[in-house]
Amino acid sequence: MNALEEITDSFARLPGIGKKSAGRIANYLLMADPQFLQRFAVQMADLQKKIRPCSVCGSWTENDPCPICSDLSRDRSVICVVEQPQDVSTIENSHEFNGLFHVLGGVISPLDGIGPDQLRIQSLVDRVSAGGIKEVILATNPTVEGDTTALYVQHVLRESSCTVTRLASGIPVGGDLGYADKLTLARSFRGRTKI
Amino acid sequence: MNALEEITDSFARLPGIGKKSAGRIANYLLMADPQFLQRFAVQMADLQKKIRPCSVCGSWTENDPCPICSDLSRDRSVICVVEQPQDVSTIENSHEFNGLFHVLGGVISPLDGIGPDQLRIQSLVDRVSAGGIKEVILATNPTVEGDTTALYVQHVLRESSCTVTRLASGIPVGGDLGYADKLTLARSFRGRTKI
Repeated sequence: MNALEEITDSFARLPGIGKKSAGRIANYLLMADPQFLQRFAVQMADLQKKIRPCSVCGSWTENDPCPICSDLSRDRSVICVVEQPQDVSTIENSHEFNGLFHVLGGVISPLDGIGPDQLRIQSLVDRVSAGGIKEVILATNPTVEGDTTALYVQHVLRESSCTVTRLASGIPVGGDLGYADKLTLARSFRGRTKI
Repeated sequence: MNALEEITDSFARLPGIGKKSAGRIANYLLMADPQFLQRFAVQMADLQKKIRPCSVCGSWTENDPCPICSDLSRDRSVICVVEQPQDVSTIENSHEFNGLFHVLGGVISPLDGIGPDQLRIQSLVDRVSAGGIKEVILATNPTVEGDTTALYVQHVLRESSCTVTRLASGIPVGGDLGYADKLTLARSFRGRTKI
């Protein structure tokens, strides 16, 4: 196997990249700006050294605690609970939320052998118990596992004084009633708001 | 911009990878086997040093001349002319051809400012003039540019004693007449064979 086939194989191991795309990318890199390629190689070699989970919220960061956890101008009385570190950037990019985050690191999924103990749930309870938190927004995905996890977190926080809320689920903006599945439609009825 | 955003940007510059996929890949790499990541970084840093164009056929290789050009068991009287180095591996993977290759490095495309002089056409003429070549198979893509280039190559080789052929173009195997476009259908009529 030569160097071109080796790097093609490495690209094909990445999520969402098949053998054909990997070959196209490898051929692109052969003709690419050598400086870009060297910089890319260094970024790859240093990635796991530079980026670590924030000890407070669990999202990826270069400095611990992360810029969000150490930003005093944010609303420190609200915590948004998400499944994965990348969900933090998704919500940050929407500019809809100005509070703090807590990354669970996954969802409860007995089939995959993931129970509550494998998730960062105890550290969430500790943060809430430390006081000052008025609301916990559960922003796990509206899937079976995400809903189960949200219910579980709500259950463990029932003794605390903070309000626990869940992101609204329903027909997406710009969507079409005709294409909404039954469950989404049912949820949009249950979650209807007065106008 | 932190290390995670930097590598996401680099991935988003690759062909066929958008911003979302790039983010997903970067997050995957954070959790990936550190050894895989280091090996990948080295492959990337070394790629352009290790892989160069073969001085004979123009395809990518670690050793010059490439394994195909130096393989004495192949049919050295036939040359298959392709547009890009990656076309060589596509044809090699089909196991349909056992001759030699010649990579043009592109197609004639006046709109992009690419004329015959920018392509490796002279070196093809030189290889044919050196003797021993009985057939030149033109395997450029059946596009306007590919067809033009094939016609041009056929023209410059008209004085040589070798036969110049073109890959058949028509309805793909497993295809459907109803979905074939007019030009493809016209070509499949013109290129019909006796059964």
